[in-house]
Amino acid sequence: MIKYPIKKELNKKRVNYGNRGIDFENAINESNKFYLTQDIAIIYKKPTPIRVVDVSYPSRNKAMITKAFYVTPSTTDYNGIYKGYYIDFETKETNSKTSMPLKIVHQHQIKHLERVSRHGAISFLLVYFKKLDAIYLLETKYLLKFNKRQATGRKSISLEEFKTFGYQVKTGYNPQIDYLGTVDQIIKKN
Amino acid sequence: MIKYPIKKELNKKRVNYGNRGIDFENAINESNKFYLTQDIAIIYKKPTPIRVVDVSYPSRNKAMITKAFYVTPSTTDYNGIYKGYYIDFETKETNSKTSMPLKIVHQHQIKHLERVSRHGAISFLLVYFKKLDAIYLLETKYLLKFNKRQATGRKSISLEEFKTFGYQVKTGYNPQIDYLGTVDQIIKKN
Repeated sequence: MIKYPIKKELNKKRVNYGNRGIDFENAINESNKFYLTQDIAIIYKKPTPIRVVDVSYPSRNKAMITKAFYVTPSTTDYNGIYKGYYIDFETKETNSKTSMPLKIVHQHQIKHLERVSRHGAISFLLVYFKKLDAIYLLETKYLLKFNKRQATGRKSISLEEFKTFGYQVKTGYNPQIDYLGTVDQIIKKN
Repeated sequence: MIKYPIKKELNKKRVNYGNRGIDFENAINESNKFYLTQDIAIIYKKPTPIRVVDVSYPSRNKAMITKAFYVTPSTTDYNGIYKGYYIDFETKETNSKTSMPLKIVHQHQIKHLERVSRHGAISFLLVYFKKLDAIYLLETKYLLKFNKRQATGRKSISLEEFKTFGYQVKTGYNPQIDYLGTVDQIIKKN
């Protein structure tokens, strides 16, 4: 199923988590801006793929798209370079306090993460547990394990499993979400 | 200035170069598909960034964008991973038989190539001389040199300079444009 960003934008509910909630996507993008301006890493969100059908030219040099459709992305949302490593990750949010349902991660995204990981990337899933205001990073090798388990077992990854196999990512002011601090731990471990 | 892909698509002239011309962008994309299916590399073209203004829902689950605009991309067109290296490049075409005008490479793209290169990427410009039906790969370090020269000297990179400082890329059936064969030479050299 295709995720329509604009729909999300338009329908976004202003839920108040008692000062705890963050705009996850925006916080990731701001963190990437910080990493970029500090010359720490060059990581960008990929634009949403759109199939353009009709374009008009209301004024010179100004193309206006008048008919277009969202296309299912082939890859993950973010990639780039950090300390010479190719970095690739997908971000997900969940309202659950106890687990992340695996159905919110598309199989083509898991396939992509598996591929880049096998070719030497540092790749992972970054999950925001909104109600807990906690972010966990889970490396692709564990995501693959839990994805495989679905065939015979539970169809989600429990919070306990994120704690055991993943890392909680530090949040703060600048960067708001210091996921590269976590990547440093991964680099050190390998 | 923003490059409008749809305009290019719609206005594309069917010029006949006596059986010599290729659809450069398509040939790159097909080469990337080949690299992907052969499990050689995972390299994708980034979608063109589009700012969506209005969306309608003519049928359930089918969002139709009715007003949107092209946005200047912050980065290059292609990136991915090959042999553990972060790969990043921009493609350009020229009708000239003798040089590539530097004005067709945007300064923000040059800045991006400089950044990723400094962080350990293999990054380059891939230039198709249409009338010669020849493709040259020029590493970022030389692109930066010639970009700098603009201030006091010529505002283009001559074909001779591509031959001296760059590599001619082999073309064929599968992959149509074997630019990773050239990247192998770069890896071996370093």
